[in-house]
Amino acid sequence: MSIDKRASADHPIHDLVARRWSPCAFGEKAVPDDDLRSIFEAARWAASSRNEQPWRYIVARKSDPEKFERLLSCLVEANREWAKHAPVLALGVAGLSFSRDGSPNPTALHDLGLASATLTIEATGRGLFVHQMGGILPERAVEIYRIPAGWQVVTALAIGYLGDPNELPEKLRARDLAARKRRPARETVFEKEWGKPSRLFA
Amino acid sequence: MSIDKRASADHPIHDLVARRWSPCAFGEKAVPDDDLRSIFEAARWAASSRNEQPWRYIVARKSDPEKFERLLSCLVEANREWAKHAPVLALGVAGLSFSRDGSPNPTALHDLGLASATLTIEATGRGLFVHQMGGILPERAVEIYRIPAGWQVVTALAIGYLGDPNELPEKLRARDLAARKRRPARETVFEKEWGKPSRLFA
Repeated sequence: MSIDKRASADHPIHDLVARRWSPCAFGEKAVPDDDLRSIFEAARWAASSRNEQPWRYIVARKSDPEKFERLLSCLVEANREWAKHAPVLALGVAGLSFSRDGSPNPTALHDLGLASATLTIEATGRGLFVHQMGGILPERAVEIYRIPAGWQVVTALAIGYLGDPNELPEKLRARDLAARKRRPARETVFEKEWGKPSRLFA
Repeated sequence: MSIDKRASADHPIHDLVARRWSPCAFGEKAVPDDDLRSIFEAARWAASSRNEQPWRYIVARKSDPEKFERLLSCLVEANREWAKHAPVLALGVAGLSFSRDGSPNPTALHDLGLASATLTIEATGRGLFVHQMGGILPERAVEIYRIPAGWQVVTALAIGYLGDPNELPEKLRARDLAARKRRPARETVFEKEWGKPSRLFA
C-alpha cells in the first residue's frame, strides 16, 4: 500500500510537485472541514486574466449522502466506479465572459486550471490527493445545480486520502500501481521554432 | 522595495501559494538555466486529461536578444512596456485535440493552466515571480514560430526576480503597490445550488 509514485524528475522539483498524482484508490477517511476550507482558499489566490477569477466550484462531502450522490451522478460511469469512495467530490466551472463588460474571456478555462492546480498543491501539502476528471456529464450538472448560461462545467475533482489499490478492480489497480510517465521536456519546450527543442533541453 | 503582497488569506494556506503574485516590476538579474529547467520540469508533471499533456512552451531569454525581441513582439503593447524588463519570457500553447485519435480535447486550455500554475509554484519556491498575460498577439506568434493548426497560443509568461516598482510608470507602480484582492470564497464555492454558498463558507 505504500506505493512510490513520486515523479521520476530529470531536474530537481519541489516536493509538493513531485508527490502529486491522481489516484483511483481513495480511503474512506473524511477530510476535515478546515482542510477543505484551506484548499479552496488556496484556489482563491490563483492568478487570472484581469483578476476575473472565472472559477466556481460545487462541492459535496460524503457525510451528506444525498448531496454526494447528486454530484456523483454528474460523472461518467467509469469515473463513478472509483470516485464514489472519495470523501469529497467537486465540480470545476468556468465563466466564459468577463463580468466587467460581458466580452468573451479567452482564458476562462485556463484560469480555472490555474485555480485547480493551486488547490491541488495546497491539498498535497495537507496529505491529501486530488484526482481531476474530464469524464463528466455537464448537462446533468447544469440541470441539477441550475447552472446559468455562460458557465461551462469543465472538470470534476475527487479529493481525499490515499486508499489501498488492492481493493480496486484489476484495470484501475494496474493504473494506480504503474509508474508515472511524461513526454520529455525537449518535446515540450521550444525556442527558435515550433517542434525544435529549446537549448535548455537540447 | 520590500512590498508585502502576501495573500490576506481567510484560512491558512501554504507559503508558496500565499507568496505568489504577478508583478510588473522585474529586476534585470538573469535566471540560472538550472532554475529554468526545473520550472519547466515541474510543469511536465502536472495532471492532464488522458495524460495528454496538451501544453507546449516557447521560451526566450534576454541573454539572446534577438529571440527575446521576437517573443516580446507577440505581446500587446501595454504588456511589452513592462515585460521587456523580465529576463525570461515564454508563450503557453495548448493542443486542441487528443494525439491518440484526433478527437477534440475539451480540457486542453484548462490543462495548460494546470501546467503553468505548477510551473509558477516551482518558480516561487526558487525566489522567482511569474506574471502571466492574456494580452498577446496569437497570430503573430503563429507566424513567427510556424505554429501548426490545432494549437492555440493562450498566454505569455514573464519570469524573473522582483524589481523596484518605483521604476515603473505611475499606473503600473500603483498596481504593483496595491494590496491583492479576491472575491470571498462564499461567492465561489457552492454546494446545494448555483450561487448559494457552501456550508463550508456560510
